Amino acid sequence: MSVDPDSGLLSPVRAGTPAEETTGDVAFAVAMLEVEAALARAQARLGAVPGDAAERITAAARRLAGELDVVRLAREARATANPVVALVRALSAAVPEDADHVHRGSTSQDIVDSAMMLVARNTRELIVADLDATAQALAGLARAHRDTVMPGRTLTAHAVPTTFGLKAAGWRQGVLEALRQLRSLQLPVSIGGAAGTLAAYVEYGDGSADYPERLVEAFAAETGLAAPVLPWHADRAPVAELAAALAQTSTALGKIAVDVQVLTRTEIGEVTEAAGGGSSAMPHKQNPVLSALVRSAALQVPVLVAGVTQSGLAEDERSAGAWQAEWQLLRECLRLTGGAAHTATELTAGLRVHAGRMRENVDRTHGLIVSERLSATLTPLLGKARAKELLTAVSRRAFEEGRPLAEILAATEEVTTVLSPSTLADLLDPARYLGAAGRMVDRALTSPTD
Amino acid sequence: MSVDPDSGLLSPVRAGTPAEETTGDVAFAVAMLEVEAALARAQARLGAVPGDAAERITAAARRLAGELDVVRLAREARATANPVVALVRALSAAVPEDADHVHRGSTSQDIVDSAMMLVARNTRELIVADLDATAQALAGLARAHRDTVMPGRTLTAHAVPTTFGLKAAGWRQGVLEALRQLRSLQLPVSIGGAAGTLAAYVEYGDGSADYPERLVEAFAAETGLAAPVLPWHADRAPVAELAAALAQTSTALGKIAVDVQVLTRTEIGEVTEAAGGGSSAMPHKQNPVLSALVRSAALQVPVLVAGVTQSGLAEDERSAGAWQAEWQLLRECLRLTGGAAHTATELTAGLRVHAGRMRENVDRTHGLIVSERLSATLTPLLGKARAKELLTAVSRRAFEEGRPLAEILAATEEVTTVLSPSTLADLLDPARYLGAAGRMVDRALTSPTD
Amino acid sequence: MSVDPDSGLLSPVRAGTPAEETTGDVAFAVAMLEVEAALARAQARLGAVPGDAAERITAAARRLAGELDVVRLAREARATANPVVALVRALSAAVPEDADHVHRGSTSQDIVDSAMMLVARNTRELIVADLDATAQALAGLARAHRDTVMPGRTLTAHAVPTTFGLKAAGWRQGVLEALRQLRSLQLPVSIGGAAGTLAAYVEYGDGSADYPERLVEAFAAETGLAAPVLPWHADRAPVAELAAALAQTSTALGKIAVDVQVLTRTEIGEVTEAAGGGSSAMPHKQNPVLSALVRSAALQVPVLVAGVTQSGLAEDERSAGAWQAEWQLLRECLRLTGGAAHTATELTAGLRVHAGRMRENVDRTHGLIVSERLSATLTPLLGKARAKELLTAVSRRAFEEGRPLAEILAATEEVTTVLSPSTLADLLDPARYLGAAGRMVDRALTSPTD
Amino acid sequence: MSVDPDSGLLSPVRAGTPAEETTGDVAFAVAMLEVEAALARAQARLGAVPGDAAERITAAARRLAGELDVVRLAREARATANPVVALVRALSAAVPEDADHVHRGSTSQDIVDSAMMLVARNTRELIVADLDATAQALAGLARAHRDTVMPGRTLTAHAVPTTFGLKAAGWRQGVLEALRQLRSLQLPVSIGGAAGTLAAYVEYGDGSADYPERLVEAFAAETGLAAPVLPWHADRAPVAELAAALAQTSTALGKIAVDVQVLTRTEIGEVTEAAGGGSSAMPHKQNPVLSALVRSAALQVPVLVAGVTQSGLAEDERSAGAWQAEWQLLRECLRLTGGAAHTATELTAGLRVHAGRMRENVDRTHGLIVSERLSATLTPLLGKARAKELLTAVSRRAFEEGRPLAEILAATEEVTTVLSPSTLADLLDPARYLGAAGRMVDRALTSPTD
Repeated sequence: MSVDPDSGLLSPVRAGTPAEETTGDVAFAVAMLEVEAALARAQARLGAVPGDAAERITAAARRLAGELDVVRLAREARATANPVVALVRALSAAVPEDADHVHRGSTSQDIVDSAMMLVARNTRELIVADLDATAQALAGLARAHRDTVMPGRTLTAHAVPTTFGLKAAGWRQGVLEALRQLRSLQLPVSIGGAAGTLAAYVEYGDGSADYPERLVEAFAAETGLAAPVLPWHADRAPVAELAAALAQTSTALGKIAVDVQVLTRTEIGEVTEAAGGGSSAMPHKQNPVLSALVRSAALQVPVLVAGVTQSGLAEDERSAGAWQAEWQLLRECLRLTGGAAHTATELTAGLRVHAGRMRENVDRTHGLIVSERLSATLTPLLGKARAKELLTAVSRRAFEEGRPLAEILAATEEVTTVLSPSTLADLLDPARYLGAAGRMVDRALTSPTD
Repeated sequence: MSVDPDSGLLSPVRAGTPAEETTGDVAFAVAMLEVEAALARAQARLGAVPGDAAERITAAARRLAGELDVVRLAREARATANPVVALVRALSAAVPEDADHVHRGSTSQDIVDSAMMLVARNTRELIVADLDATAQALAGLARAHRDTVMPGRTLTAHAVPTTFGLKAAGWRQGVLEALRQLRSLQLPVSIGGAAGTLAAYVEYGDGSADYPERLVEAFAAETGLAAPVLPWHADRAPVAELAAALAQTSTALGKIAVDVQVLTRTEIGEVTEAAGGGSSAMPHKQNPVLSALVRSAALQVPVLVAGVTQSGLAEDERSAGAWQAEWQLLRECLRLTGGAAHTATELTAGLRVHAGRMRENVDRTHGLIVSERLSATLTPLLGKARAKELLTAVSRRAFEEGRPLAEILAATEEVTTVLSPSTLADLLDPARYLGAAGRMVDRALTSPTD
Repeated sequence: MSVDPDSGLLSPVRAGTPAEETTGDVAFAVAMLEVEAALARAQARLGAVPGDAAERITAAARRLAGELDVVRLAREARATANPVVALVRALSAAVPEDADHVHRGSTSQDIVDSAMMLVARNTRELIVADLDATAQALAGLARAHRDTVMPGRTLTAHAVPTTFGLKAAGWRQGVLEALRQLRSLQLPVSIGGAAGTLAAYVEYGDGSADYPERLVEAFAAETGLAAPVLPWHADRAPVAELAAALAQTSTALGKIAVDVQVLTRTEIGEVTEAAGGGSSAMPHKQNPVLSALVRSAALQVPVLVAGVTQSGLAEDERSAGAWQAEWQLLRECLRLTGGAAHTATELTAGLRVHAGRMRENVDRTHGLIVSERLSATLTPLLGKARAKELLTAVSRRAFEEGRPLAEILAATEEVTTVLSPSTLADLLDPARYLGAAGRMVDRALTSPTD
Repeated sequence: MSVDPDSGLLSPVRAGTPAEETTGDVAFAVAMLEVEAALARAQARLGAVPGDAAERITAAARRLAGELDVVRLAREARATANPVVALVRALSAAVPEDADHVHRGSTSQDIVDSAMMLVARNTRELIVADLDATAQALAGLARAHRDTVMPGRTLTAHAVPTTFGLKAAGWRQGVLEALRQLRSLQLPVSIGGAAGTLAAYVEYGDGSADYPERLVEAFAAETGLAAPVLPWHADRAPVAELAAALAQTSTALGKIAVDVQVLTRTEIGEVTEAAGGGSSAMPHKQNPVLSALVRSAALQVPVLVAGVTQSGLAEDERSAGAWQAEWQLLRECLRLTGGAAHTATELTAGLRVHAGRMRENVDRTHGLIVSERLSATLTPLLGKARAKELLTAVSRRAFEEGRPLAEILAATEEVTTVLSPSTLADLLDPARYLGAAGRMVDRALTSPTD
C-alpha cells in the first residue's frame, strides 16, 4: 500500500520531539489496543469475562502493538468513519478462542475516546516536565537578572525602566499558570456502550444493581484514567478543557517567543539564543530559530482549539462528523504544544542576556525613559500644567538635539531652583526608578506555585 | 455627534437580556470610573491620597457615570488607542481641586483591564444564575422522564433505546461542568503602572518596603477582585481562562440546542419549545426559535475565543494591537454567552416532552432498535457468525417488509427452538434494554455538583 | 531514527484518497527538489548557470526524490526553522562538481513557497476533477428528480413543498462556485532572494537591465506556475486566497453532507448512502458514513484557514514564526478538502433517493405544508385578519386531530362558499405548489458554469 | 426601554469612521426597509402589485427609516429569531390600505440577506475608496523612496539591504490584491420565498412562464444588486466570499501595521506616525497609535471570518442557528475592515520616513549586511569552503570588535590579493547591492492594477 505520511517536515517545531512519539498513528493505535485490553481486564475483575481470557487479550494486544499496519487501519476506518471496527477485527483474529470477550458490550466511541485520553495523559506528562524545566530556567534568569535594568516597552516604544528579572518572572508566571491548568485536568475514561446507557455492558454483567458503576471504576482503574459522572460521548467538556489548557500553554510559551524576537533584533540585541540558526547565504546571520518555532506553534493552537470546542455541538448520542472532526485537531494541539514546550526548554536554558546592551538601550533616549518620574516630582513643585509644558519642551529638545536630558535640565533655571543637583541626578537614574520590580521578582519566585 | 450604535438587532440571542446591561459601552465606562475611584480609595487607605480627596473622586465618578458621553469617549480613544486618557480628563475636570489624585501613578491598562474584570464579574453572576436555573430545569426533566423511553441515536440513526431522562441528565452535566469552570475563575485586578513595575505608584507611596503588595491588596479589596501574583499587562492568562470558560458554557448550552432541534423536527416531534416562533406566511409553523438563538451564540463564541487567546501573544510590556484586539471579542463572548444562558432558561423551563411520540419512534424500526441485545443473546446460542448472519437477514426482512421483528422471529424455527416466546418478548421490549440509564440519572442528580 | 508518522488514522476523510499522495512529506520534499531543479534550468536559460549543470542538477533532483529521508530532513529543519538548508546540502552532495550552481542566489523561502504552490497545483487538479464529477452526479440527480416533491424545511420544520431536484441543483451550484474560485486562483512561483530584492540572483546574472523579470518568467515557465508582480515573501495574499478557496470548497461539500444527514435520519428516510457503514454491535445499522466524513472535513477547514490568513501578519521581509505557522495548516486544508472532494464523489454518485418516502413526509402534516398558499388565496376573499384567524384554527385542528386539512376545510362553510371543491383540491396539492422549482432546475443546469 | 448599546468604545479602530454609519443597527434596519420597498417596486414593474401601492410603500419605508425604534425591533426579533416579522408589522401599519402588498410572497430571509448585501455594498464602497487612497499614498512613498536604502530584515535580523521604496511597493501590492478581490465580488440579491421555490411570489404573479426570472431581475435592478443563478438561502457562498475578501483586506493592512510597528521602535526609529498618540504619564512618548489600531482589526477579522464560513454548513432550506450566527460576525468584519481601511489612509498619508536613520541602521552591522555578496564574490576566487570559513571568521571579528568589515578585510592579505581596494569598496557598499529593487518598484507602479 503506497502511502506518504507526515513526519513533521512542515512542522519543525515538533519534528523529533518526544511528543511525536506519544501522538503518532502508532501511538494512537497502541492506545486503542491498551484500552481494549483494559476493558477486558475490568470486566474480568467483575466476572463478566474469564480472567485468563482477559490475560490472553492483554497479551495479544501487546503483541499486536508491534505489528499493526496503521495505514491499512486508517483506510479501513473510512468504511465505518472510525478505526475501531477494523482494530477489533484484528484483535479478535489474534485471539480466536477469546473473540467473544473482545470489545464485549462496547462501542467504537468508548475505545477512541479512551485512547485519546491515554494519548493526552502521556503527552501531558511530557509537557508538564518540559514546562517544569522551562519554569526553572526562567526562575534562574529572574534571579540572576533581578536588578538588570532594561527598557520597559509599551506600544513598541520605551516607557519606563524595568528589569530583565521581572520580565523573566512574568514569563515564568505564565508557564506556572499553564502548568496549573494542565495538572488540574481530569482525563476521564470513556464508557457508555452503543448509545450511552451501558446496556450491552450490563447485559454481560452479573445483574447486581451497582454493576454499572463498578464497571466504570474498574475500567478507570485499569486505564489509569478518571471515572466520569456520566458517559460523555456527546458531552465533550473533557476534550474542550484539555484543548483550552493546551492553548493556554502554547500561548504562554509564545509570549516568551515574541518577546525574545523583539529583544534579539539587530538594533536591540539584548538577548541571543544560544545556538542561532545559520543561513547558507549570509554567513553573519544568527537567526532566533527556537523562538520562531515556538511562535509558529502558538499561532496555530488557538484556532485548532476553536475547531475542537465547536465540535462540542455534537447532536444526538453520537455526532456524525463533529466527533470525527475532533481527532486530528486535538492530536495536533497536543503535538504542537508538546513540540513548543520541548523547544522552550532549549530556548530558555540557553538564552544569553546582554546586560550591557540593555543599559545602552535604556540610555538611548537620553534620560527620557524616566520622564514619568520627573513629571511626578515636578508637578507638586510647578503645578501640573506648567510641569507638563516644561517636560514636553525639554523632552523635545533632548530628542531633537540628541543631548542628555540631565544636561538640559541642569541648564534650566526653573528646574535648578526647585531641585538640587544631587536630587536631579537621582531622579534621572533609571536604576533608581524600578518601582517594586526587585521585590516582585522575589515574591513571585517564592510564592507557592500551585 | 451622529452615531449608529448596536443594540442587538443582528444578535437576537442577547437582545434585551440582562447581559446587555452589564456589557454595553456605558457599563464599561462606568466600570472604568469605578476602577479609578477604587484606586483613589485604595491609595487613601495607605495614605498616598487624602481620604477626603478619594471620597470626592468616588462621588464624582458616580455622578459622571450618569452623564458620560460614551460616543465622544469612543472617538477620543482613537487618539491614544484606548479610552482612558479621555476618561481621566473628564474625571479630573469634575474634581479640579483633586485632579492630582486622580489616576495617580496609574496607566491606561490598569484601568481598562480592571474594568474588564469588573464587567466579567458582573456578567458571570448573571450567567451563573441562569445556568443554575437551567440545571434545575434539566434536573426536573431528568427526574420526570427517568424512565421515558426514546430512541438513542448515533450518526443520525436509531441505535439502541435510551431515556429522555438520561439525555436531560447529560445536558445538565455539561451545564454543571461549565458552572464549575466559571466559578473557579480568578478575576484579578490589574495594577502595574506604566510598564508593570509599579514605579509611579511606589513614587507616591510611603516608602515602606511592603507598600507595593499592600497597594495591590487594597486595590483588590476596593474593587472586589482578586489580587494577582504579578502584573498581567502582557501575561493574558486571566483573559484566556475567562474566554475558555465562556466557550465551554456556550458549547454546553449549544449541545442542548442542537439536540432540541433534532427532536423537534416535523418527522420526529419528540419535544417542542413552549412558545414556538410564528411565521407571517405559514400559519401552521411553530419554529424552535429559542434553540436557534442558543445555537447561534454557540457557533460564534469558540472562534471569538480563538481571537482572544491569540491576543496573548502580546509582545513587550504592553502590546500595540494585540491588547486592543481583545476588548470587543471578549465583551462579545460575555454578551453572547450571557444571552445564550438567559435564553436557555426559557428553553429548558418550557420544553414540552412528548413521551408518546418517543415511544412511537422507538417502535418505528419494528424492533430493530434492540438488535444489539438479540445479537448478545443469540451469539452464545448459535455461534457468533451464525447469529450475525441470521440477524442481518431478519433485520433486512423487517425493514423491507415493514413487519415487526417479533413476528418474523416468532416464525423462525432456529430462534424459537432456543428462545421461549416470553424470553423473546422480553428481549424485544425496548423498555427492558435501557442498561443503567435510570440508575445513572439517579446518581447524576445526587452527585455533588462541585 | 524512530518515528511515528501520521497516515490518516485520525483523519479517515482523507485516508487513502489521492490528495494524500500529493500533500505528504515525500510529495513536499519532491516538490522542493523540482523547484531547485527548475531554478537551475531557469538560470541556465539565461546563461547564469551552465546548461549541462542544470541538466545534471535536474537529474540528481529526480534521483534524490526516490531516496530522500524525510524524517531526517524534518529534524534537520529545526536547526534553521525550515527544511531547505538540509535539502540543499543533500542536493549539492549529489552533484559535487555542480554544487556552486545549486540554489544559486536563492533563499529558503523561494524554495518552500514555490514547492507549496506546486503541491497546491497538483492537489487542486485532483480536487477540481472530483468537484467536476460531483457536479455531474448532482446534475444527474437534479434532472432525475426535477419533479420529485419533498418537504422544504426551514428552522427544522416543514415549510412549503420543494423538489429534490431543486435541492440537488442548489448543492451543485455551491460546488460550481467553489470550482470557479479554485480555477481562478493564481498560483505564483516565489522568487525574491534573501530579502526580496533578487540581489544575489542579479549578482549571478548577465547584468542586463531586464534580467530580473526574465529570470522570474523563466522560473515561472520551468515550474509551470504564474509569474508574480513582486516577490511575496511577506505579502501572503496568494496563500490566503488559496486557503479561502479551499474553505469555500469544503463548506460547499459540507452543506451537502449536513443535508444528507438530515434526510437520512431514521424518521425521515428520504435518502440513503449507497454503502452505509455497518456497526459491529447493531446488525441493522446503516450509518451515513460518507457524509459524516465530509462533514468532519468541513468542520475543520475554516478554522485552519483562519490560522493561515492570520499568518499574513508577517513582519519584515520574512517573518519569524508566522511563515512557519502556515505550512502544516495549509497542507491540512489541501488534504482535508481533497479528501472531502473525493468522498463527495462517492457520496453523490451513490446516493439513493426515496421519492415515495418524500411524498409520505410531505403528507405527514395533513396538508399544512401548503398553508402559505391557502393564506394567499383566502386573504383577498376573506380579508387578511379573518383568513389568518381561520387558517390558524383549522391548522391547529388538523395537527391536533391528525386529520387531513382537506377534510376539515371541505366541512367549513366559510371556505366552501368561496372555493369550489376542485379549486380546493388543487390548492391543497403539494405538487402544484412548487413555484419555479422545475424551471429553476432547468435554468441552473443549462446556465454557463463559469 | 433601557438599553446600553455599542458605540465603539471597545473598538477604537472603527469609532467614528464612516463604516460605522453604514453598518450600525439603524443602517441595517433602513436597508431592510429599502429592500421591502424595492420588492414592492419590482413586483409593480411586473404587475403583481399596483404601481401606486409600490410608491406609497416606498415613501412609507423612507419615512419610517427616520423613526424606527431599533431597540424594540431587536427585542421583538427574539420571538421569531429574526427582525423581519416585526419590521413588516411596522411597515404594514404605516400603509394600512396597502398592507396586502407589503412583503408580498416574501420570507424573512429574502429581506435580511438582501439588506446585508446592501450594507456590504455601501461599506465596500467606503473601503474601496480608502484602499485607493492608501494605495496612492503608498505609491507616493514607493516613488519618493525608490532608492532609500534600509536593512532588509528576516527572522528579526538584518539580512541584506533593501529599499523603503520596495517595502512600500510591496505594501501597495497587498492593498491592490485586496482591491481586486473586493471589486470582483458579486453581491447578489436574495429572493427565494418560504423555502427557495419562489412559490408565493409566483402565486401572486401573472402566470407567465418566465415570471420567476423576470421578478429576480427586477428585484436585482431595484436594489442595484446582482441577480443570482439560484436562491442562496442555504448556499452561503456569497457571504463566505465577501468575508474572505474582507479578511484579505484587513490582513493586507495589518501587514503594513506590523511593519510600521517594527520600524517605529525606539531603537530602530526608521519611520514615525504623523501624530503619535501621547501618554498622560510619560511626556516623551509618541505611540504608533494608528498602526496599533489597524493591527487590532487585522487580529480579529480572520477568526470572525472562520465563524462566517462555518455558518455555511447550513442544514435544510434555512438553518436554525447557522444563519443567525452569520449576522453580527459579518457586520463586524465589514465594520472592522472599514475602520482599518480608514485608519490606514491616515497612517500611510502621514507616515514620516527617516532615511538617515535607515542608513545608520544599515551600517550598524559594520558591513555584515552585504556578506551574502562577499560570499558570492569570494566563492569562485577562494573555493566555497574557504570563502565561507574566511567570511565567518571576519564576520565574527567585525561583530565582536565592533569594527567595520571593510577595515578588517583591507587588512586581510588573502582578500587583498584577489580584490582591489576599489572593488572591495564597491562590494561593501550597501547601496550597490539592491538587486532589482528599484526596477521592481518602477514596474509595480506602472503595472496594470487590475
